[in-house]
Amino acid sequence: MKGLKRTHFCGEVSQIGTEAVVCGFVQKVRNLGTLLFIDLRDRTGVVQLAFNETQQPELFAKAETCRGEYVLMAHGTVKERESINHDMKNGNVELVVDDLRILNKAQTPPFEITSDTKVNEELRLKYRYLDLRRAPLQRNLVMRHQIAKAAREYFYANDFIEIETPMMMKSTPEGARDYLIPSRVHPGKFYALPQSPQIYKQLLMVAGMDRYIQLARCFRDEDLRADRQPEFTQIDLEMSFVDVEDILQMAEGFVHHVFQQVLGREIPLPLPRLSYAEAMNRFGSDKPDTRYGMEIQDISEYVKDCGFGVFTGAIEAGGSVRAIVAKQAAGTLTRKEIDKLTEMVKGIGAKGLAFIRWVEEKPSCSFGKFVGEDKLHEILQALDCQQGDVVLIVADKNKVTLPVLGALRQTVARKLDLIPEGQFNFLWITQMPFFEWDEDNNCWMAMHHPFTMPEDDCLQYLDSAPEKVIAKAFDLVLNGTELSSGSIRITNYELQQKMFQALGLTDEEIEAKFGFLVEAYRFGAPPHGGMGIGLDRLAMVMLGVDSLRDVTAFPKVQNASELMSACPSAVDKENLDILGIAVTETE
Amino acid sequence: MKGLKRTHFCGEVSQIGTEAVVCGFVQKVRNLGTLLFIDLRDRTGVVQLAFNETQQPELFAKAETCRGEYVLMAHGTVKERESINHDMKNGNVELVVDDLRILNKAQTPPFEITSDTKVNEELRLKYRYLDLRRAPLQRNLVMRHQIAKAAREYFYANDFIEIETPMMMKSTPEGARDYLIPSRVHPGKFYALPQSPQIYKQLLMVAGMDRYIQLARCFRDEDLRADRQPEFTQIDLEMSFVDVEDILQMAEGFVHHVFQQVLGREIPLPLPRLSYAEAMNRFGSDKPDTRYGMEIQDISEYVKDCGFGVFTGAIEAGGSVRAIVAKQAAGTLTRKEIDKLTEMVKGIGAKGLAFIRWVEEKPSCSFGKFVGEDKLHEILQALDCQQGDVVLIVADKNKVTLPVLGALRQTVARKLDLIPEGQFNFLWITQMPFFEWDEDNNCWMAMHHPFTMPEDDCLQYLDSAPEKVIAKAFDLVLNGTELSSGSIRITNYELQQKMFQALGLTDEEIEAKFGFLVEAYRFGAPPHGGMGIGLDRLAMVMLGVDSLRDVTAFPKVQNASELMSACPSAVDKENLDILGIAVTETE
Repeated sequence: MKGLKRTHFCGEVSQIGTEAVVCGFVQKVRNLGTLLFIDLRDRTGVVQLAFNETQQPELFAKAETCRGEYVLMAHGTVKERESINHDMKNGNVELVVDDLRILNKAQTPPFEITSDTKVNEELRLKYRYLDLRRAPLQRNLVMRHQIAKAAREYFYANDFIEIETPMMMKSTPEGARDYLIPSRVHPGKFYALPQSPQIYKQLLMVAGMDRYIQLARCFRDEDLRADRQPEFTQIDLEMSFVDVEDILQMAEGFVHHVFQQVLGREIPLPLPRLSYAEAMNRFGSDKPDTRYGMEIQDISEYVKDCGFGVFTGAIEAGGSVRAIVAKQAAGTLTRKEIDKLTEMVKGIGAKGLAFIRWVEEKPSCSFGKFVGEDKLHEILQALDCQQGDVVLIVADKNKVTLPVLGALRQTVARKLDLIPEGQFNFLWITQMPFFEWDEDNNCWMAMHHPFTMPEDDCLQYLDSAPEKVIAKAFDLVLNGTELSSGSIRITNYELQQKMFQALGLTDEEIEAKFGFLVEAYRFGAPPHGGMGIGLDRLAMVMLGVDSLRDVTAFPKVQNASELMSACPSAVDKENLDILGIAVTETE
Repeated sequence: MKGLKRTHFCGEVSQIGTEAVVCGFVQKVRNLGTLLFIDLRDRTGVVQLAFNETQQPELFAKAETCRGEYVLMAHGTVKERESINHDMKNGNVELVVDDLRILNKAQTPPFEITSDTKVNEELRLKYRYLDLRRAPLQRNLVMRHQIAKAAREYFYANDFIEIETPMMMKSTPEGARDYLIPSRVHPGKFYALPQSPQIYKQLLMVAGMDRYIQLARCFRDEDLRADRQPEFTQIDLEMSFVDVEDILQMAEGFVHHVFQQVLGREIPLPLPRLSYAEAMNRFGSDKPDTRYGMEIQDISEYVKDCGFGVFTGAIEAGGSVRAIVAKQAAGTLTRKEIDKLTEMVKGIGAKGLAFIRWVEEKPSCSFGKFVGEDKLHEILQALDCQQGDVVLIVADKNKVTLPVLGALRQTVARKLDLIPEGQFNFLWITQMPFFEWDEDNNCWMAMHHPFTMPEDDCLQYLDSAPEKVIAKAFDLVLNGTELSSGSIRITNYELQQKMFQALGLTDEEIEAKFGFLVEAYRFGAPPHGGMGIGLDRLAMVMLGVDSLRDVTAFPKVQNASELMSACPSAVDKENLDILGIAVTETE
């Protein structure tokens, strides 16, 4: 590389008549006999290098040795191209090369380095450094960077300071499992990786830091799904002297800023809001996708006397009969398709699926023998149906009916292709219940987390009717994905003790796990609250990709291993001895 | 807090005649009978709240109940103050309060929340959330934030993109010990916390990401010193298509930017450079503090025939006799002090310390009986000494003489108070040796790391004389602290294999530890290099504090525990069973 310095990124070469030095990877070589063209690629795009055998035979011969993914540096003059390539942003020019350096050679890669390479993901992840050369992944990482950059810009401009909290902290298992780190200096003891910086950021408020932000790595030892990774990044923030409204406003400003900066899109503010109860009633979900309608409707009133045992039984047991209407879907939702949907809802807890398919003039109805034609039309009218529509009905306790119809709504929307692309529907879910009943352990659990402040006027129900206690907690939903959750925190020593007790923690457990936190509240804690916004998920939705792996440089797969480096891996017994631990079980 | 919103930070209240709402902690209450003043503190400073019993008796009574560290919100009007407090930036005004809310009460804290609180650090760390309320620590965290912000600004503006690399990676023990994380899904296997993102950032270059930066948390399971923490943050960067000079220039631009932005100081560029050999010869250190002179001088030539066995023996064995001159230090460096220094140098490997103390006309000299008066004056003249100076001399092999005098130079400079405050002396150390001999393990070790590129013209010595191989590696030193080290990396498959072999790794070890990295070089790796700049150390030196604990929100102490949360801690056997490990040793 002696004597030459890059002057332009490949994608930037455009000004005819100027000289340029570019560096990059060979995307493609086209040898036309006496003319040879190399598409040279870097992070910014591609530029065509041109060689002419007649004019520069030696250079041409060198260029002829280049293969895909060779690493080159080239000096030349920018000329207008004879045949313009309209797929390239600088496809009207080429660099007529007069100096070519082959900086490194390359074996044929195990798959094609193209945007639409056809190869299974496993192979791509094994050679992740090659996969990341592909334009879509390059774009994803650049845009993720821009999202993080916009986040910092916005919060810094709003008086937040970024403070780094420890990655090696105390294990306080709540919710997910902690990843543990054995201590060498204190054998038998362990650090934990943070599930979130929750406790530290609250202590930073007690410390008077006032407004904290951190793009914080968080860790959860859970079984993975497409939208889970063992480690992920949270735009984590906390503010003092605020109430719910202040935090929502701050977050809305962020949403507006990041979409404007990164996608050039104006998100209208304020963002819509739904109470938790309304979201459940209308969409059967606490994170509804509002890009399409098909809301859940209650038809209990119309069927309560119909004589169909499934319906009347559900209503009499305090439940309900509810429906979604798939408009003009009779063509797609055939009897066979409805059978599949029935299997699906049975798989998630429903006893069955009733339906009305209004294809011909007379609707076909799974419970037709129980309701007269008039009743049926009354129901269809109540649901505002037309011929061509399909009504799907679930009858059960509300805690079954609603989530089942919520899930069904999503499945049907996908099947009918109702979900518009490129649209961003935000939604606040507010007035969350504080407690949820844990059937497995037969106790109340904190729906958000135990540090959440209850609404003032429902403290009276704490002992008598915990289900009535509303938390000062809120979620931010984007296109059906939960992006963020937050709350106002308890800052009163006695109240925090009381909430822990309501959650069934003994005094010893409180002391052992959270002693230092509640102790801190004795010394003057400012009112505070905050939220954590999933950066990876935000990037995933903004970029319109399906998997967190597409916005993560070196992701792990379902079984929490990284295919490229083959990690996790065995370690020498000697190293474990130093830590005072032993392996008791192997794969 | 209903109905009131903060309008100003405390330190911002200044405009006479305006109204303001402030929030904060009570710093001090002064009750003068009918007048009462509260100093209210937040992150930005202090404002005086004023109450008048005659005019507002109820408010006054409420204010009278306030104690130190109570959390208040107050509304009032900004008035000119009768007695100006020149120690406060807004000490000329006060807020005459007409609405006061006590948001939270506070117990008396275990130590005074003042800048110069007199209490041992252990107690401060146990109540870190109170310690962090003190102005010096608030300032440190704010400035650390500003340093990180300036770093991102600078590198983003130079086409770097920030990419997050995994925290749970493969254990590849090199240098320090890894922290390990047992895997639940793969019992018997472990992840490791990164000692640095070295391998990942190199793979990002192979992936064509071109310019990478990350403020990356790094972890080393080492025994701690004042300037070590088990976790620390590195401004980690890597660039493609560059040589050493490009990286140095980029880093110099950063240094200039961060000092200008954060301290308003202009660091003159280019930064001075010394080769490793010259730094060792002149300062006895690879990270010399150049804020003061007292360089090491070689007096072998003058004493080689003096007949003093210690000197002549050292020289004959291929070593040298070298000295530092403490100018006008005879008053401080008494015989007794020199005895202490002798003990010190013996503790770090020297056999003894010779000296010349030129107090009276006739210098007193520890080896006087071996050298005549003329010889002594010749030496003193060669060393450019005056009456009042003290010469300290070590004779041994160079690998003893130099580092011992280097350490002595530092000790003496501190004793004589030669080190100027508020001065920032940067220094590049270049032309580092590739290998250093590991006496413990009787093998060559990579001085920087095994991925470092050797200088082209010394590859010939790889087998015959490894000590002659110079690496394309460099360190950045600030005031005697190593801030950063970096290098150009090997990007050639064969050469990397060869370097691993020279370091004594077997093919199996190479494959197991670095197989995926060297494999990557087969597919076209661009030339690249980079560095990691210690953010915590940079902050420490810029802020002029002595310990990393002063620039870390929640630091760990010497034994790697965090006093506030009492971490690490024991975990239930049940949790370990799930991970397939058992504790074999406890504290």
